[in-house]
Amino acid sequence: MQHRSEETRSHILDAAYRLFSQEGYDATGVAELCAAAGVSKGAFYHHFPSKQAVFLALMEIWLERLDLAFASARQSASSVEQAVVNMAGMAGSVMNSTDVHPIILLEFWMQAFREPTVWQAAIAPYRRYQHYFARLVEDGIAEGSLRQVEPGLAGRVLVSLALGLLMQAVFDAQTIDLAKEASQSLEILMDGLGRRAA
Amino acid sequence: MQHRSEETRSHILDAAYRLFSQEGYDATGVAELCAAAGVSKGAFYHHFPSKQAVFLALMEIWLERLDLAFASARQSASSVEQAVVNMAGMAGSVMNSTDVHPIILLEFWMQAFREPTVWQAAIAPYRRYQHYFARLVEDGIAEGSLRQVEPGLAGRVLVSLALGLLMQAVFDAQTIDLAKEASQSLEILMDGLGRRAA
Repeated sequence: MQHRSEETRSHILDAAYRLFSQEGYDATGVAELCAAAGVSKGAFYHHFPSKQAVFLALMEIWLERLDLAFASARQSASSVEQAVVNMAGMAGSVMNSTDVHPIILLEFWMQAFREPTVWQAAIAPYRRYQHYFARLVEDGIAEGSLRQVEPGLAGRVLVSLALGLLMQAVFDAQTIDLAKEASQSLEILMDGLGRRAA
Repeated sequence: MQHRSEETRSHILDAAYRLFSQEGYDATGVAELCAAAGVSKGAFYHHFPSKQAVFLALMEIWLERLDLAFASARQSASSVEQAVVNMAGMAGSVMNSTDVHPIILLEFWMQAFREPTVWQAAIAPYRRYQHYFARLVEDGIAEGSLRQVEPGLAGRVLVSLALGLLMQAVFDAQTIDLAKEASQSLEILMDGLGRRAA
């Protein structure tokens, strides 16, 4: 039974991913999710208390893959500068490979903005990445590869550029190779953070 | 009558701006707009064919102010590097002074993404700024203040960072001074584009 229950959960997540991408988060109802997943409403609510909970579960899966990619990029790079460029490329690839359309993420943030109860869940990863990159910049300053910048500001700039690249992926979905664009963009930014060969 | 007609138009724009910010673009109907502006539906449709048209008019006003600010920043700066940092500060100030909540802009883009007919109107300023900043980078390379980077890529990076700062303003509305944050962020980026004192 455990196996079947996990299958049900996974069917719901697959259907949600497909419908949120195609129809939008707003336009997709629980009834539609159930029909697309081939499950009863009872089975749905056994696994998820709400549509929001399904979205959060999808986001968690996606962020776990991103965190793994980041950790591996950090470990294999010889400097923070190189690590960040590799992370950007990997994040772009994760995005491409999962076929997660960035519009889902943006749409959910809009939702969260208007619903204080989910705001915390939506904002938490954003804060986490700001701190993660601030610490990474501290490491870079300590290892001597980055200039003496304010790590908090630099962390926010890194996250802002990543969010902007996400928006670019929405606007230029057809023309942009996100992995390549992200690495090249971050290379330019990291040149600004890098220590001058003065 | 011309004067009164312009007043009506301006009442509608004011009401739309207020309702889109408070209730969201999606959640605001034409009936609500009319009630808040104190105009009849007939008067509304005399001025605007649709809710979308009202939003586009609001965006046009905002973009005109932004373009004026950019032109003045460009003229008064001694280098492209300085011009971009000033532009960022001015864009942040325009945002603060108009009280345009970035969420309206993002929400409209989400809408546009799902409605091909308005996509062109929504995407046009985005493309225009990409080209504008690509040309600005070309100027910077020509004047010798910027490195030999690919201007198209650099223009996209500048627009991406600006969009990311807009997202940051959504997430950190209470804590961020957008004008200051934007200038400081662009300073870091422009350091990456600047010619090395090697």
